Amino acid sequence: MSQRIPVVEKILSANDHLAEENRRRLDAAGIFSYNLMASPGAGKTSLIERTIAGLAGGRRLAVIDGDVATSIDADRARAAGAMAVQINTGGDCHLDAVMLKSALETLDLGSVDMLIVENVGNLICPASFKLGTHRSVLIASVPEGDDKPYKYPAMYRGVEALVINKIDLLPYVDFDMEYFQRGVEILNPGLVTFPLSCRTGEGLDAWLEWVALGGTGPGSSRDRE
Amino acid sequence: MSQRIPVVEKILSANDHLAEENRRRLDAAGIFSYNLMASPGAGKTSLIERTIAGLAGGRRLAVIDGDVATSIDADRARAAGAMAVQINTGGDCHLDAVMLKSALETLDLGSVDMLIVENVGNLICPASFKLGTHRSVLIASVPEGDDKPYKYPAMYRGVEALVINKIDLLPYVDFDMEYFQRGVEILNPGLVTFPLSCRTGEGLDAWLEWVALGGTGPGSSRDRE
Repeated sequence: MSQRIPVVEKILSANDHLAEENRRRLDAAGIFSYNLMASPGAGKTSLIERTIAGLAGGRRLAVIDGDVATSIDADRARAAGAMAVQINTGGDCHLDAVMLKSALETLDLGSVDMLIVENVGNLICPASFKLGTHRSVLIASVPEGDDKPYKYPAMYRGVEALVINKIDLLPYVDFDMEYFQRGVEILNPGLVTFPLSCRTGEGLDAWLEWVALGGTGPGSSRDRE
Repeated sequence: MSQRIPVVEKILSANDHLAEENRRRLDAAGIFSYNLMASPGAGKTSLIERTIAGLAGGRRLAVIDGDVATSIDADRARAAGAMAVQINTGGDCHLDAVMLKSALETLDLGSVDMLIVENVGNLICPASFKLGTHRSVLIASVPEGDDKPYKYPAMYRGVEALVINKIDLLPYVDFDMEYFQRGVEILNPGLVTFPLSCRTGEGLDAWLEWVALGGTGPGSSRDRE
């Protein structure tokens, strides 16, 4: 399959160029932005609902939701009080900078302070496609198991924050937090991590504080992207 | 992106051709085979461990494990008593017929009665690539949420059986089984379904019976692949 590598490289380079354009556009509008990535069902939409509800100070939030099909997630974000745009990728397993560019064109950027992009549920493909957002965040969830950093290293390596969701399920599953975090530390030393439960609300305050401060809050000493 | 469709079609057609070759090879060796697909952490490896332990009659089982990285899954299958081969896909988000062909060449097929292929953890890409196996099985898991059939329709449409794992967690999460199963029924009417828990063992007997009978056991009236 080595013949297709140059094509892939060309696509990625064109994508990165467009990602830079998206970033400039967001910066010009004064919008700080997050790219949320996770396995299907880890809790991206639930975390967005909690974030919309928990962000103080009248900040105007927009959500761009990527899914293979349906507008379930954008509907939930809208019901929670955000402006929301749904992108349906058809068969594509990730968002890319072109899709984000198109979605940005449908938003009134002058009335947005913060943007959360919810990527397609997938622990592999989204890691390869920059969107132009300011911070990339991975959501792991306890019932997925403690071996995921070892099995999906590119995803764990490429983010500026990690949420460990569904900690309320820790008593009911086999999840060795020490083994999980050792894997994370190997791939992404010092990564800022938020263990929390979107269901019970436990641990949400630290996450909300970090988001409110633009991803530079307590526990985060890095600005790598 | 419409320019790349012909290339994708050519890759898929070449893949289908090789998948047919794999099937002929398996048939010639008298091996019945399953392709297990699921989201990361839904319980593919746990179900394989349970299946190895639960299959009576001295059936000789081989497992081919696909992962982006590590040999964790093949090590677990081997520890449970099966012959096991690990495929590391690098960045690829699915197995394809070429990878299965290579893996089959490393196995002594004369000493295998049944083959389980554990695909890469992903609810999108594996749906597009036939391997040549006799039955495709999807594992959903309760903590992933009840909206997954609606959001990943291609995957739910393309399988001959559905396992709903982690039913022991039903009391602790919001999962509307009726809503979930309504989505499944729309996409794949009459799909044979096994609600079970690899952790507690509940519901495993029906699954083991179906596997032992070559995917034509009670509840399954179809042979579509």
